Amino acid sequence: MTPIANDTLLRALLREPTAYTPLWLMRQAGRYLPEYNATRARAGSFLALATSPALATEVTLQPLDRYALDAAILFSDILTVPDAMGLGLRFVAGEGPRFEHPLRDEQQILALRAPDLDRLRYVFDAVAQIRRALLADGVQRVPLIGFSGSPWTLACYMIEGAGSDDWRQAKTLMYARPDLMHHLLRVNAEAVAAYLNAQIEAGAQAVMLFDSWGGALADRAFQEFSLQYSRQVLAALRREHAGRRVPSILFTKGGGPWLQAMSDCGADALGVDWTVDLGAARARVGDRVALQGNLDPSVLFAPPQAIEREARAVLDSFGPIEAGQAVGHVFNLGHGISQFTPVEHVQALVETVHSYSRALHRGSSQAGQ
Amino acid sequence: MTPIANDTLLRALLREPTAYTPLWLMRQAGRYLPEYNATRARAGSFLALATSPALATEVTLQPLDRYALDAAILFSDILTVPDAMGLGLRFVAGEGPRFEHPLRDEQQILALRAPDLDRLRYVFDAVAQIRRALLADGVQRVPLIGFSGSPWTLACYMIEGAGSDDWRQAKTLMYARPDLMHHLLRVNAEAVAAYLNAQIEAGAQAVMLFDSWGGALADRAFQEFSLQYSRQVLAALRREHAGRRVPSILFTKGGGPWLQAMSDCGADALGVDWTVDLGAARARVGDRVALQGNLDPSVLFAPPQAIEREARAVLDSFGPIEAGQAVGHVFNLGHGISQFTPVEHVQALVETVHSYSRALHRGSSQAGQ
Repeated sequence: MTPIANDTLLRALLREPTAYTPLWLMRQAGRYLPEYNATRARAGSFLALATSPALATEVTLQPLDRYALDAAILFSDILTVPDAMGLGLRFVAGEGPRFEHPLRDEQQILALRAPDLDRLRYVFDAVAQIRRALLADGVQRVPLIGFSGSPWTLACYMIEGAGSDDWRQAKTLMYARPDLMHHLLRVNAEAVAAYLNAQIEAGAQAVMLFDSWGGALADRAFQEFSLQYSRQVLAALRREHAGRRVPSILFTKGGGPWLQAMSDCGADALGVDWTVDLGAARARVGDRVALQGNLDPSVLFAPPQAIEREARAVLDSFGPIEAGQAVGHVFNLGHGISQFTPVEHVQALVETVHSYSRALHRGSSQAGQ
Repeated sequence: MTPIANDTLLRALLREPTAYTPLWLMRQAGRYLPEYNATRARAGSFLALATSPALATEVTLQPLDRYALDAAILFSDILTVPDAMGLGLRFVAGEGPRFEHPLRDEQQILALRAPDLDRLRYVFDAVAQIRRALLADGVQRVPLIGFSGSPWTLACYMIEGAGSDDWRQAKTLMYARPDLMHHLLRVNAEAVAAYLNAQIEAGAQAVMLFDSWGGALADRAFQEFSLQYSRQVLAALRREHAGRRVPSILFTKGGGPWLQAMSDCGADALGVDWTVDLGAARARVGDRVALQGNLDPSVLFAPPQAIEREARAVLDSFGPIEAGQAVGHVFNLGHGISQFTPVEHVQALVETVHSYSRALHRGSSQAGQ
């Protein structure tokens, strides 16, 4: 078991006592960082960057060299699995991801199979290489998080072929042919579970399911077409590897209405967006899961003083912390960090979360400045 | 007091007993209707259509001639008020609304005043003309709903100058200069209240505040920057006109997390989107407000059989109805109807809601088939 210098993230995800609230940022290796843009320019394209283990390792570590973040997250794309199924992922400048062969008829859907994991070897190689790069004198700096899109979120893109405001084609299939949608989701769930288990084998020490479009679903449809299949993935995951528990996180953007149902889905933690009050969420999920979130990324456009105020308000909203007690809060944004974020604003956030939460964890009633 | 042949909508909004669940559709006069597209083509542009009382009257009545809807809603745009403040509303084909003079500095914001209502005369003229057009032999077919954008939603567009994925500029101002944002919202609240009261004077028999972007706000920010100002508008509204109560509706898209706080904002009814279970929402808001919603508009892309199934599920989700008792449900979509909706699918929806809810209102425990 490789020793980890800072395992605060893993402890918080498993609701073990920590000295402060750990934080990482969704999309922390991204376009707001000049060093990321330089590497991406060298790579030539986003896909070239994401499919090169060496370059993916380089950008994964960039935010850690700049900020005292408590986790690394694999640099990759949520759509690698359908690409490996043969849908042909490409990125059009300014338009986001597209599939060359979206699923448009019954035959295509029924012919779909979970991919040969060899076609995703570049991802597992990146995981292993990042793990090595995180070592300093035999000690790992921070844990590495692996991830995948959720079965529903993958299905959205696989049917639509690209991002969408209303997921019209995906929802039309869901309402008109629920049998076909369930077939597709079963295949996706099997594929995602195998993919995440292979990431764990390669060295991912926590895994996250990004259910980015679960929140587009109606009540009832969410439970039937999104949550049910996230649950299947979570049930099939390895819970331990190399002597350590491997915590899992489910993040449904816009999933606030369903936190209670999500809290027994098998994940160790739930990601929550900024529309949710963390204290109220904590009351709803009880001690069944940790919570990850939930600063509005737009706060990072404001000056450091406002960032400090809002970050403290998020920490305060989680509710009282007794010294030495389990808490289960991982600080994050409620969505990926924007490319327009000034780099020095992230510094202000990291410092505030660490210093203010350290005071809160000492159990002082006046955490203060 | 003009008699209304079908006042089911007004009764449901005021939580009085009704024989069935009334329905209307957000954006019911819109691009899915060929007759609407014909009128719009004649008008030359969306703005020409919206600013002509005669043409606005024509398209307002079109969906009523095709379907047995229980209300007419004024055909207009949510951004008429900032346009009258001098921001210069225009529509770019395929891009939605834009302001020629968005608010970009402190001076502009501090100089802002509620508009001279004379600049919105075309709206009040349309309201009066629609009321006349709804008469047959001295009896009004269905009630007419007036509306406005909420103070926060107007502010989003006024600052950003156009629609946005993240409302970056609006939120940056909000977090960096809350004092300026509050100033802007105070002016908007005053303007919106005056605007809606003038619509009521002209003949609107219910009014709705569209808080289309309240759901983009973080918890706490929503209460401070959106709900507070909707409350101010609602408190300033005329509650009665021409011998009738004028019910009010507040719709915050994505407002599910805040239904409880919204239920004492002064509105008679709250609009809810499809992420919310109506029964759970009813439990949270109690008998303080009626609820309006909440079918996912994407259901209307599926065949009539699926539409029937989903519409019944929405009606069932509201929970048991005792014959002759107050209920307070107005059926609607959880968002505007899509331009891609087949017209015959709307027919299936209207028929299902009326027939199935009529059975439910008879208090039969087995309403359906």
